[in-house]
Amino acid sequence: MTLKSLLLGVVSVIALSGNYSALADDVPSISEDALKVAAELRDEALKSSKGYDIVESLTTEVGPRMAGTPGDAAAVKWGVAKLEELGFDKVWTEPVTFPTWKRGIETAEVVAPYPQPLVITALGFSVGTPEDGLTAELVEFDDLAALEASEEDSAKGKIVFIKNRMKRAKDGSGYGPAVSARTRGASEAAKKGAVGILIRSIGTDSDRMAHTGVMNYEEGIKKIPAAALSAPDADLLENMLRRGKPVIVKMTIGAKQGKEYTSHNVIGEITGSEKPEEYVIIGGHLDSWDLGTGAIDDGAGIAITTAAAELIGRLPERPKRSIRVIMFANEEQGLLGGKAYAKAHKDKLDNIITAAESDFGADRIWRIDSKVKKEALPVVMEIANLLKPLGIEYGNNKAGGGPDLIPLRQLGISVFSLRQDGMDYFDYHHTPNDTLDKIDPEALDQNTAAYVVLAYIAAQMEGDFGGGFTKEQ
Amino acid sequence: MTLKSLLLGVVSVIALSGNYSALADDVPSISEDALKVAAELRDEALKSSKGYDIVESLTTEVGPRMAGTPGDAAAVKWGVAKLEELGFDKVWTEPVTFPTWKRGIETAEVVAPYPQPLVITALGFSVGTPEDGLTAELVEFDDLAALEASEEDSAKGKIVFIKNRMKRAKDGSGYGPAVSARTRGASEAAKKGAVGILIRSIGTDSDRMAHTGVMNYEEGIKKIPAAALSAPDADLLENMLRRGKPVIVKMTIGAKQGKEYTSHNVIGEITGSEKPEEYVIIGGHLDSWDLGTGAIDDGAGIAITTAAAELIGRLPERPKRSIRVIMFANEEQGLLGGKAYAKAHKDKLDNIITAAESDFGADRIWRIDSKVKKEALPVVMEIANLLKPLGIEYGNNKAGGGPDLIPLRQLGISVFSLRQDGMDYFDYHHTPNDTLDKIDPEALDQNTAAYVVLAYIAAQMEGDFGGGFTKEQ
Repeated sequence: MTLKSLLLGVVSVIALSGNYSALADDVPSISEDALKVAAELRDEALKSSKGYDIVESLTTEVGPRMAGTPGDAAAVKWGVAKLEELGFDKVWTEPVTFPTWKRGIETAEVVAPYPQPLVITALGFSVGTPEDGLTAELVEFDDLAALEASEEDSAKGKIVFIKNRMKRAKDGSGYGPAVSARTRGASEAAKKGAVGILIRSIGTDSDRMAHTGVMNYEEGIKKIPAAALSAPDADLLENMLRRGKPVIVKMTIGAKQGKEYTSHNVIGEITGSEKPEEYVIIGGHLDSWDLGTGAIDDGAGIAITTAAAELIGRLPERPKRSIRVIMFANEEQGLLGGKAYAKAHKDKLDNIITAAESDFGADRIWRIDSKVKKEALPVVMEIANLLKPLGIEYGNNKAGGGPDLIPLRQLGISVFSLRQDGMDYFDYHHTPNDTLDKIDPEALDQNTAAYVVLAYIAAQMEGDFGGGFTKEQ
Repeated sequence: MTLKSLLLGVVSVIALSGNYSALADDVPSISEDALKVAAELRDEALKSSKGYDIVESLTTEVGPRMAGTPGDAAAVKWGVAKLEELGFDKVWTEPVTFPTWKRGIETAEVVAPYPQPLVITALGFSVGTPEDGLTAELVEFDDLAALEASEEDSAKGKIVFIKNRMKRAKDGSGYGPAVSARTRGASEAAKKGAVGILIRSIGTDSDRMAHTGVMNYEEGIKKIPAAALSAPDADLLENMLRRGKPVIVKMTIGAKQGKEYTSHNVIGEITGSEKPEEYVIIGGHLDSWDLGTGAIDDGAGIAITTAAAELIGRLPERPKRSIRVIMFANEEQGLLGGKAYAKAHKDKLDNIITAAESDFGADRIWRIDSKVKKEALPVVMEIANLLKPLGIEYGNNKAGGGPDLIPLRQLGISVFSLRQDGMDYFDYHHTPNDTLDKIDPEALDQNTAAYVVLAYIAAQMEGDFGGGFTKEQ
């Protein structure tokens, strides 16, 4: 027992005595019994392999499930069936409507001075090129800032090539600075007169696979086709350009907008025994990009959180509060599932005790961050204590909670971040290489063990984690 | 100085005295001067980076160069120009004629029970499917032997799936046992009534890229289309098949035979000062598969051996014998360049003092094997001594010499094998991932250092390594 839990001794003894209600809203606490059960759940999770079974099932029986494709519909069907099969008390879906995008042909080649093919992939929501392709000279920029800082017409009639390299980091901190080339590059290039854009993939690998991902066109700016090059192809273009001759590239992209589509958030609930209307959210996103089978992004998150809730469902008694596993629809193309959930439930935010999404691959969790009221930090420390044997340390009280929770977080709910080691995540992210073999079953169990502790304690605690954590606070 | 070179002391002293001819054919030897120059060349090579420049040039300015394609012709042109630019004394080409094969569309998908796309690549010389594809049920076999041992009609009307996994090994010893599924699988499957074959890629990676490579049809057996699956796709099919329902796959392959084509072996010579007609062969193969840029297979071999010879060419004096760098044509589709060279030069085998090909990637050399007459082993030991600081040990006197040297070796010439660490070679072999970024410039310099020692000593030695090492001996 740690110092912090000793300090909580009085609270715990009272809690054990069964007299919870007096403390409820003032001093959040967790009973020794609950801590014991949480530890057992944690240890059970480490032996479970249930998470791996779930992601194996999703990637094998559904595979790619880009928003609005037949794979999306198959995934929703799979999600409902899986949650029912695993004995969740309630399983339902909630509609999520969004515009869709279709990938088509995507090829590129150097036409001159050294003809050879290039490996590219269109960025999500890119327009297509003319059917017989777009041929133009390349103009290179170190990064998006260099493009923005360049003179007017710096890319007139040319294909912009942005060559910035994403940095590898455990916490994924290289992604933010690099990804703006993908999200905003096309419109910035168009402002400089470009007819197309090729970016070095936002990734940390050196495999000949390009990384897709969503991009946006700025309103009122000409839409030009946008694609990512694999890292070796970006190297190749750099090497060609260094020779000083004009490099002429042809790119052919058949991508286009599709029709509006309605998919669904899939929700499974372990219904609470005392306060069933209050609930803990854990989950991931059910959609994936189309190039891989969506194993680490985000089959793993679906698997980890479903396995964690399923373990709690196997207890002889239901926890006090409910646990909802939410398989969010269409995260990849703009957090549509997360936005729809927040919109649908915004009038009952008090029911959400806390929330945590797993969407950063399948490697081990190394840190837990919280966003809770100060008074609830002792309970957080109890959770952190339980996670210590898993190699997880407490970080800070500034948790983000995960992408699909951004809309809810902006409305002020309490969230947790169980931060995974992202060292290799961007080697595979949004590529064909996002497949089941990239998942270590034991690492997945460690994740499940952490989520089961968090979900159970949150469902079982006295008092709450607070709320109203809007940006302004 | 080592014990072995001490034992050679008498010989060396005589050699130093300038009276070489009396010893020539009886007791091969190498002078102290030559050893000193070789050591200097070795150390110079480690600082050179010339090898990297060459492979960067080949992969950037030519890229893929499958036999019979425009890339093949561009590579021959590049080879001639590069050897001339590097100051070789003579540069010429020798014709190599062969049948060609064209890759076309290559797609596959699971049609039922879990529709999803598969990543495949056609095997070299595979026939195509009907234009609208070939759809059939899969039947799996653990390996080629299991297919061969199965009952007649075991694959009737089906697509055979061979799932054997190649083992990773420093010496590449996993390749031989695994590759027969690729080379002979189609005809063995056809004998059992199959309409197509998909093999797990012959490789050691877990990337979603399929490994191509040549296959053969047995005469008189129906030709069925043959392709390799990426490792993750082979896993996926195994997981689907484990569920017990029939797995229906559609494969569409547009490959076909092309016309006969004449390419060229490209040869550069540093011409000897005393016995110019006698020569040492070093080299690699100039062709590559079409999926990558042929950096490690075999741009590296071309680069290493060209850089080694170029270093010798920079000496104030030419060595006694000539050094020929041979950039062999069309190794990948059946050692056609090697066969053509052996055929064209079979009447003057005595002129070949020894030969060594670099064709096992770009990693460090860890062992040297020889095939020489017993009396020449002391010279081999001197070479091995010079290679020790490079981390290279002597192996045995049973060297193979490299694929393109098989035809010459079968005629009995002396060969050396400078054996590279092949631990990662089959991660990239014959895939789109065979690109420049997989090459460590320092490892390449280590290779160049080893080749320069071997080539220089062989060109400079008194006596010879013998010959007549035909299989029967």
